[in-house]
Amino acid sequence: MNLLYLLDLIGTVAFAASGAWAGVRRGMDLFGVLVLGMVTAIGGGTLRDLLLGDLPPFCLRNEIYLWLPALVALLVFISHRFLPKIEHPLLYLDAVGLGTFVVIGTGKAIAFQTGPFGAVLMGVMTGTAGGVIRDILSNEVPLIMRREIYASACVIGGVLLVLLQWLPVPNDLALLLAAASVILLRILAIHFNWSLPKAT
Amino acid sequence: MNLLYLLDLIGTVAFAASGAWAGVRRGMDLFGVLVLGMVTAIGGGTLRDLLLGDLPPFCLRNEIYLWLPALVALLVFISHRFLPKIEHPLLYLDAVGLGTFVVIGTGKAIAFQTGPFGAVLMGVMTGTAGGVIRDILSNEVPLIMRREIYASACVIGGVLLVLLQWLPVPNDLALLLAAASVILLRILAIHFNWSLPKAT
Amino acid sequence: MNLLYLLDLIGTVAFAASGAWAGVRRGMDLFGVLVLGMVTAIGGGTLRDLLLGDLPPFCLRNEIYLWLPALVALLVFISHRFLPKIEHPLLYLDAVGLGTFVVIGTGKAIAFQTGPFGAVLMGVMTGTAGGVIRDILSNEVPLIMRREIYASACVIGGVLLVLLQWLPVPNDLALLLAAASVILLRILAIHFNWSLPKAT
Repeated sequence: MNLLYLLDLIGTVAFAASGAWAGVRRGMDLFGVLVLGMVTAIGGGTLRDLLLGDLPPFCLRNEIYLWLPALVALLVFISHRFLPKIEHPLLYLDAVGLGTFVVIGTGKAIAFQTGPFGAVLMGVMTGTAGGVIRDILSNEVPLIMRREIYASACVIGGVLLVLLQWLPVPNDLALLLAAASVILLRILAIHFNWSLPKAT
Repeated sequence: MNLLYLLDLIGTVAFAASGAWAGVRRGMDLFGVLVLGMVTAIGGGTLRDLLLGDLPPFCLRNEIYLWLPALVALLVFISHRFLPKIEHPLLYLDAVGLGTFVVIGTGKAIAFQTGPFGAVLMGVMTGTAGGVIRDILSNEVPLIMRREIYASACVIGGVLLVLLQWLPVPNDLALLLAAASVILLRILAIHFNWSLPKAT
Repeated sequence: MNLLYLLDLIGTVAFAASGAWAGVRRGMDLFGVLVLGMVTAIGGGTLRDLLLGDLPPFCLRNEIYLWLPALVALLVFISHRFLPKIEHPLLYLDAVGLGTFVVIGTGKAIAFQTGPFGAVLMGVMTGTAGGVIRDILSNEVPLIMRREIYASACVIGGVLLVLLQWLPVPNDLALLLAAASVILLRILAIHFNWSLPKAT
């Protein structure tokens, strides 16, 4: 799964940049920016590994998942004056990361023999929990609880992967199809400003 | 322990409803309501299983603990206009859940050979951590840190179970006595508006 | 390592007092003060043990790490009118705890075969995560994300220990040197009011 690994690293970079950027906008010091960048990039996968009991988590076993987001956060801190110009392209890389993280999480949960609900939950968590921890550390109501179909795209991707698992579809193809569906939905949601109904 | 399992499911429903209701009151979208409902219902037991190293946690092994709170949260989201009318009865079901969760948590910790303080702590955490995570996700100081003897009832129930463990009391009876004491204390606290002393 | 164990208990007392004190200042009730005191004292080490998969965590295996902070928090709650007078000496004990927690965390991670980045990360987390959880429960942006070189001292101590591990230095001496460097840096930072650059 070299393509999946490459997409995973792209997603890690994008998530780290968006987390670090959130720290810069709040006037945090270098340490705060590093923490927000790293937590956003690896928080979801770490929580998934904690819950699946696959310890130590992925980021402690392959340290590229620590060095890469730390480096990205450092770069964002140094060059933050130029970042607004790349904020829009970052949203697309963020969508790539979201789709990849969801299918990796759902796929791993299936391999760990969870049921279908648990598998989708682990996928959604892998894709979104990093951002939730970032928002908690910034003392804000997590963005995902308030706005947009960010999470719905993850749910659909996870459900699709679980369903494809039950059909005679090659595993690699299933992963790519599910990831692509999340990425596409996410990009469409950005373009058309979709949102879920609210309680009123 | 079929009675305990039934009480556990009742508690799961009550906690999910109160969590989802908190999301509705804050104007969250469907996803936010689902997350708050589920986290309130299964957060405490999940944290307990994480700390005891019993992984994956209960909710990933028996998916009724995922489907049930998700369904309840969905129902609350759809029918939330009618919920104020059942808010008061819900408090009683919530007390049932609290007592059950505490004795399940303390009993499990004892079975995992923790000391007495650890056993009480795991019980209190099983009963209260879901609500704490709900409040953190809603960006509020956890209710339990500010008001009422909600937590004290849990502590008393956990201590009682640890003590009964050392006496020649049948295990099932000890669990029911301890759960009943929490439920009774909690209902009395609601009726008489009891609270702990504050630092002044 | 009897000296290290003694320093660890001193740090536990200091962290518990600062956490409980934070609860008192926010007008919390006895339960809230206990929770903040305990979480500040044992939260970092518990998170480290969760991530390393060493479960149940240290505080559930040696209950002195539960009784001691609970007792300290109770004392702070009872005698809080006198605490402002000892706030300054507490800062020095807090520095001792910080240095000890960092080297214990980094040392344990090395023993668990993490890489160098992971080892430093576990050390920093052991020293700081308790305070972060305290601030999250108090609904504040974690202090460490906003101010001072508190965390930088931890990073330097962790890096120093990792480097000393690669040299022919006795393990005990390496631990003490690294702990002393954190303690010294922290005390100098308090005296000279050092801080990291901010994004502007």
